[in-house]
Amino acid sequence: MTLHSQLGPGAEFDLIRTFRSNLPDHPDVLVGIGDDAAVLRGGWVVSIDASVEDVHFRRSWLNAEEIGYRAATVALSDLAAMAASPVALFVSLHLTAQDYARGPEIMTGIARAALAQDAAVAGGDTTRTSGPLAIDVAVLGRSDRPVLRSGARAGDDIWVTGRLGGAAAAVQTWHAQHQVSAAARAAFAQPHARVREALWLARQLELHALIDLSDGLASDAAHMAAASDVLIRLQADQLPIHDAARRSDDPVHLALTGGDDYELCFACAAGSVETVRADFERTFGLPLTRIGRAAAGTGVQIVAADGHPLTGEWRGYDHFGVTS
Amino acid sequence: MTLHSQLGPGAEFDLIRTFRSNLPDHPDVLVGIGDDAAVLRGGWVVSIDASVEDVHFRRSWLNAEEIGYRAATVALSDLAAMAASPVALFVSLHLTAQDYARGPEIMTGIARAALAQDAAVAGGDTTRTSGPLAIDVAVLGRSDRPVLRSGARAGDDIWVTGRLGGAAAAVQTWHAQHQVSAAARAAFAQPHARVREALWLARQLELHALIDLSDGLASDAAHMAAASDVLIRLQADQLPIHDAARRSDDPVHLALTGGDDYELCFACAAGSVETVRADFERTFGLPLTRIGRAAAGTGVQIVAADGHPLTGEWRGYDHFGVTS
Repeated sequence: MTLHSQLGPGAEFDLIRTFRSNLPDHPDVLVGIGDDAAVLRGGWVVSIDASVEDVHFRRSWLNAEEIGYRAATVALSDLAAMAASPVALFVSLHLTAQDYARGPEIMTGIARAALAQDAAVAGGDTTRTSGPLAIDVAVLGRSDRPVLRSGARAGDDIWVTGRLGGAAAAVQTWHAQHQVSAAARAAFAQPHARVREALWLARQLELHALIDLSDGLASDAAHMAAASDVLIRLQADQLPIHDAARRSDDPVHLALTGGDDYELCFACAAGSVETVRADFERTFGLPLTRIGRAAAGTGVQIVAADGHPLTGEWRGYDHFGVTS
Repeated sequence: MTLHSQLGPGAEFDLIRTFRSNLPDHPDVLVGIGDDAAVLRGGWVVSIDASVEDVHFRRSWLNAEEIGYRAATVALSDLAAMAASPVALFVSLHLTAQDYARGPEIMTGIARAALAQDAAVAGGDTTRTSGPLAIDVAVLGRSDRPVLRSGARAGDDIWVTGRLGGAAAAVQTWHAQHQVSAAARAAFAQPHARVREALWLARQLELHALIDLSDGLASDAAHMAAASDVLIRLQADQLPIHDAARRSDDPVHLALTGGDDYELCFACAAGSVETVRADFERTFGLPLTRIGRAAAGTGVQIVAADGHPLTGEWRGYDHFGVTS
């Protein structure tokens, strides 16, 4: 029987909910639609991720190599989110006739992302398109013990790696047609798939639930909350905010709703992470921050330092939502 | 060391040749780019295939369910081409805002194709696009002994399943704005992934090389010839031509260059297939036809009944070629 996690709110997820119940299963599929990746018998972990021009990036923001690098990295991040080791990428390039000459540059970026995680590029398809440049990357990895999003328990602490809101700060600045700082640009153009970090954490700790931050912390925490059937309460004053986001009008909002950080968010028994935190930060040069706690209930609540809930629209990017 | 087969001619394949040498490998990838699918350690066979509006199909030709069915079937056909059993599909849908309501219909078609091959739909991604409707399907299957395109030997007989040119006849008729027959339409809109046929043949025979016919027989045979380092000589008068193609101006040309048949083409020791042919045809209700022979040399030669080579442009669809 294949496990399908509960999904969080959003029109894209409504669509998935609509058709998921009618999709066929296979006995070799242990975890199906609803987590960051599927788990197949034998320890294989598999996902597919799209990068589409003017949806996930703009041409004016990235060069061709970065477009490829980023497309592969966001797919690899889904393996990090399962604590799986990448093995192979399969790449479908949709190129306009004018983009044909940029194919090798895009593939160079994809190869760089794969190489950074010791993964192969093992297959692909190349299609001419009249529309936006698009790249689909399917990733395969292995894990003896994949970590799902569904295991958070009331009382768990919620942690994140790295700093949040940097990529969103870059996007906000580009939209405002202001000059984007090198640090903000790098946060968007050169994200890291936190694979080594996830494997390290999974070795050191009993991770109850793990997800990567692609849609924005508030949205992704809502997925973890829905899958785990808990309430996740996040402390706005504890968020590790990227320097570029700190300089924005509303750093907390960017950190909560800005997607594209590709950091890890995980749930662990209260008090268990503190013992390895310094070692993690030294090993990876990356902060590890407790940002909240799971409790009985449903959904996500954002609270101020005094414990009072913040109000606001905390949803991240929703491809088909009325708000985005 | 990952095996990479030689590719046949065409601009799309020139692009792959350009970047393939710079792509990273992984020890778990046994067969990489260049065959119908990759082979990973443990018997997993993996491929990704794109279906893009106005490239692979037109909206006026297919309904939404058929668009989904066909996208999944052509991907599954790559598993048939390796004699692998499908396990799971991963689907990336690029939908315009107007297409959002058709998502469930498209997924119904994908589910039908998966169900026909006892495979699960185990993951996906849904993206809003401003451009053409596009579907990427990654397929995973298993095989204890995958059949590559690279094993044809001089002296082998070349065989195909089914009848050729039906889908191309439909496309030709649509382009001419004439009425398309039900049989021609079905050949295009309802192709079959010949998975059971491939598994049956692989059990009964020692298949030296196997490929599915997606680009057109002449092109696909050229890939087999290049990968196997042989000349493949096809007999124009022996081709099993679809009834819809027989009614066209040039049935042989359609059968040779019309893509989208998704039949199997394979190489076997001379004389070995005849013993199982009647049983195959009875089991599957599908003709099995010897269409040529492999010889020392390179490329593909089309010969008339008297043995003289036919001249002409036999290349199939090439996404970035000057001829298409």
